[in-house]
Amino acid sequence: MEDHVKKEIARRLAIAEGHLKRVRKMVEDGAYCPDVIHQSQAVQSSLRKVDQIVLHGHLHSCVLGDVHGSVKEKITDEIVGLFKRE
Amino acid sequence: MEDHVKKEIARRLAIAEGHLKRVRKMVEDGAYCPDVIHQSQAVQSSLRKVDQIVLHGHLHSCVLGDVHGSVKEKITDEIVGLFKRE
Amino acid sequence: MEDHVKKEIARRLAIAEGHLKRVRKMVEDGAYCPDVIHQSQAVQSSLRKVDQIVLHGHLHSCVLGDVHGSVKEKITDEIVGLFKRE
Amino acid sequence: MEDHVKKEIARRLAIAEGHLKRVRKMVEDGAYCPDVIHQSQAVQSSLRKVDQIVLHGHLHSCVLGDVHGSVKEKITDEIVGLFKRE
Repeated sequence: MEDHVKKEIARRLAIAEGHLKRVRKMVEDGAYCPDVIHQSQAVQSSLRKVDQIVLHGHLHSCVLGDVHGSVKEKITDEIVGLFKRE
Repeated sequence: MEDHVKKEIARRLAIAEGHLKRVRKMVEDGAYCPDVIHQSQAVQSSLRKVDQIVLHGHLHSCVLGDVHGSVKEKITDEIVGLFKRE
Repeated sequence: MEDHVKKEIARRLAIAEGHLKRVRKMVEDGAYCPDVIHQSQAVQSSLRKVDQIVLHGHLHSCVLGDVHGSVKEKITDEIVGLFKRE
Repeated sequence: MEDHVKKEIARRLAIAEGHLKRVRKMVEDGAYCPDVIHQSQAVQSSLRKVDQIVLHGHLHSCVLGDVHGSVKEKITDEIVGLFKRE
């Protein structure tokens, strides 16, 4: 993966860790259950977004390394798009 | 939520945090993309398990507080079961 | 479940069947793969919507039959909301 | 997509249509709500399986058409595997 992509992913994961720590704090403080679940689902949603970025990088840099330009973009976006909807 | 349930949930969330930190380390170390996504998906799966435990506690202790015994168990398990499959 | 809810669900399921039949036609006609998957995902999404309506009816009419008025609405919407995000 | 894959997919979609029709019958007959949702979820699960087969065909025949042999299999299976877990 390219370096700036790697940094962006690490940054998002660090944010997710902080978010998760706050979910734990909510539980320890006796927060209302549905609120806890909503926050946990928000973390999962941000991790799915990370997965999409990693998949995009994988397809773009590894799998389709030799395909060029706009065709590569099209195919990559299509596959990541399918992953998104799943 | 009962105290032992709260502890169990906090324990699982702490494990998920550690797991997530290792995913970030994998990214920084340039691990193979599909392996990164698998580990991220494993964290998401453990958070969904946490959600089910929280929902179970919510239904059992709050929503169905007055319903008694085996009927409460049945209804709770059914709803959590639907959530699981989703 | 109340009668008008039952009818609404049956109506949505009938639409999903028609949609699914068209997906099969697309496959037989050799449609572009990502388009086929998108349409299949749209059917799945409409079935998840049906599940939410059924769950709403279940909570409202069966599980929380004795709880009254606005409290019932609040609890039902909260639980269905969690299901939606999952 | 190859012809035998196309037939296999159409066959699975036809089964899903039959399954969906029976879910509608369940609703009309007043079946127990959680049972209706379980059956709807089973249809969704079989459609996700179809999506994976279509994606496999897409990657194998279109996207990675020029990559040869075992490398193609490995990459295809990896990507479909990620899709499966999502």
